[in-house]
Amino acid sequence: MIEKEKFNESELIKYIEKAGLETRNFNKNLILESIGDDCAVIEDKKKILLSSDNITENVHFSLDLYDFREIGKKSLLVNLSDIAAMGGIPRLFLMSLFIPQYLCMPDIKSIINGVIEEAKKYEVSLIGGNISSASELSVSITIIGDCESAGIKRFGSKKGDAVYVSGEIGNSWMAFYLNSNKDYIFKNKTGLKSSDKRLIKDFINKYKLPKPRINLGRILYTKNLAGSLTDISDGIYKDIFNVTGKGCGCRINIEDIPVNEELKKIADILNMENYIDDIISFGEDYELLWTFDREYTRREFTELQGSCGTNIKKIGSIDEKNAKLTFIKDGKVFLPEDHTFRHL
Amino acid sequence: MIEKEKFNESELIKYIEKAGLETRNFNKNLILESIGDDCAVIEDKKKILLSSDNITENVHFSLDLYDFREIGKKSLLVNLSDIAAMGGIPRLFLMSLFIPQYLCMPDIKSIINGVIEEAKKYEVSLIGGNISSASELSVSITIIGDCESAGIKRFGSKKGDAVYVSGEIGNSWMAFYLNSNKDYIFKNKTGLKSSDKRLIKDFINKYKLPKPRINLGRILYTKNLAGSLTDISDGIYKDIFNVTGKGCGCRINIEDIPVNEELKKIADILNMENYIDDIISFGEDYELLWTFDREYTRREFTELQGSCGTNIKKIGSIDEKNAKLTFIKDGKVFLPEDHTFRHL
Repeated sequence: MIEKEKFNESELIKYIEKAGLETRNFNKNLILESIGDDCAVIEDKKKILLSSDNITENVHFSLDLYDFREIGKKSLLVNLSDIAAMGGIPRLFLMSLFIPQYLCMPDIKSIINGVIEEAKKYEVSLIGGNISSASELSVSITIIGDCESAGIKRFGSKKGDAVYVSGEIGNSWMAFYLNSNKDYIFKNKTGLKSSDKRLIKDFINKYKLPKPRINLGRILYTKNLAGSLTDISDGIYKDIFNVTGKGCGCRINIEDIPVNEELKKIADILNMENYIDDIISFGEDYELLWTFDREYTRREFTELQGSCGTNIKKIGSIDEKNAKLTFIKDGKVFLPEDHTFRHL
Repeated sequence: MIEKEKFNESELIKYIEKAGLETRNFNKNLILESIGDDCAVIEDKKKILLSSDNITENVHFSLDLYDFREIGKKSLLVNLSDIAAMGGIPRLFLMSLFIPQYLCMPDIKSIINGVIEEAKKYEVSLIGGNISSASELSVSITIIGDCESAGIKRFGSKKGDAVYVSGEIGNSWMAFYLNSNKDYIFKNKTGLKSSDKRLIKDFINKYKLPKPRINLGRILYTKNLAGSLTDISDGIYKDIFNVTGKGCGCRINIEDIPVNEELKKIADILNMENYIDDIISFGEDYELLWTFDREYTRREFTELQGSCGTNIKKIGSIDEKNAKLTFIKDGKVFLPEDHTFRHL
């Protein structure tokens, strides 16, 4: 039996330094000192955006849904989404790894490879971080972006503003739900065709990682097409209150929430009638949610959707009802179950 | 029986926002957006220093040595030390809390209070972060400082340079050792006087938290009195290689390593003859370690020591012996046990 290669701090630091070099050139003009000293040193004449977010085992991911490379990817993607939610350009990041004993070096390297893969895709440079042993796996990233101004804030909407979202809502929830219950489903839903099973398996794989909407955020910012902006990390049900202005509420039309066709099909196959409740209260979609002081013209809408590579959809409007969220379905007020946010 | 108040995310966010406000004014001119949006937004025309470090339960602290307020303090102090080790000024920070289920709200608030207490002392502003549940307690901080240039690097020394340290080495180790063994010591060392016990108890309390040497780092930088600089987080035995230049080694005189008088007395009382081995290989002192291309003049030495509020001491010199560290004791080469670094 070959013993698994255990965590070796100095080897790992070398591995990270080398991996970091592959991302060094993306923002060369901003980086004066990268990994290897007590601090990284940067300079940036623009406004600098800073955010920290972590993903932790059994809170933000389970090891039966994500492989180690995907965990690395997800840790960076959720942070990139915070820069998108300001309309900024992501530039640099620091990565802190919390490494439990059960991880062997190839696993840890896979996490780092996943991070670096996405870093290359989004052209952000790894400039520092740290490694610590821990009892459970966690990746904590501080992302640094920049913008010509302070970016698009939250809470900037007022009565009458239109509310928009990008992409589709609920894919992350359905991928999680299916993965958690797939053994039960495949065993007990005897009417399932093999094509249904295929559909379910594909859905899980397709939607377990978010797509940070950097391009969309930038266009909203540069074209001045949003009054307030955030990303949906905790579910519409909660995140809507990040765009509503002081004392404002919001009306959302359930039918206008963009839902994936395969998700609907799967919900139908599995007789999940009330899936909309979960879609609005489960987080981790990392789609953008924003307001504009009127509905876009057809031309604005087409141009915006064409240039950002993502569908966008008007789902409601800001009203004056004291900080209340009202869902409308079939022309009537719809009361979803009072979900509190769950990451998993 | 009154049930302990459990972790409540939204209440905690409000508490942190309010606590953060108390630190908001220190760097007002740098902060455009603080806690509350998807990112913090800052601007800084100087060079920006960035570093992340975390302290984790059972790795960097044990709950029988630190109370929650002290854990908060320590999490910020170790990060401030990284800015000191560049010769920069600490300005802002992001704080990520990993909160295990056993913590109740008053405990979590104590951690935050500890962080804010030190933030006020060092005039750094809390601008963001995140909260996550976890199986063990950890505080991860990203510190942001600035400097007129890229600061004082590591690895900048050459043959003949003098090697200096600040403060005293080994206090953190002794405090940890005594705390870990105090039950045994108090029970089995029958010859202990009550004044000895007092000495031991006081020592533990006095040295469990580091003092980041911000002033010293700044003076070394502004007066151009260091060729390379780092802080001692992993022990001289390891950190010395962060100041030695390419291909250089170092000779350190064991007798010149500044050791606390009470530490010596306790070592004597407890018959710890080889304590020097532990002093050089245990980390967490967070004193500065630096080189200069010659010995300071008496005047430079006196001025430097007078203005930084810390004792400084020459402990050795850089030599050409290929990346080797040589300890000298009583004029002879001294071979300490080959310790690998332990945080606890």
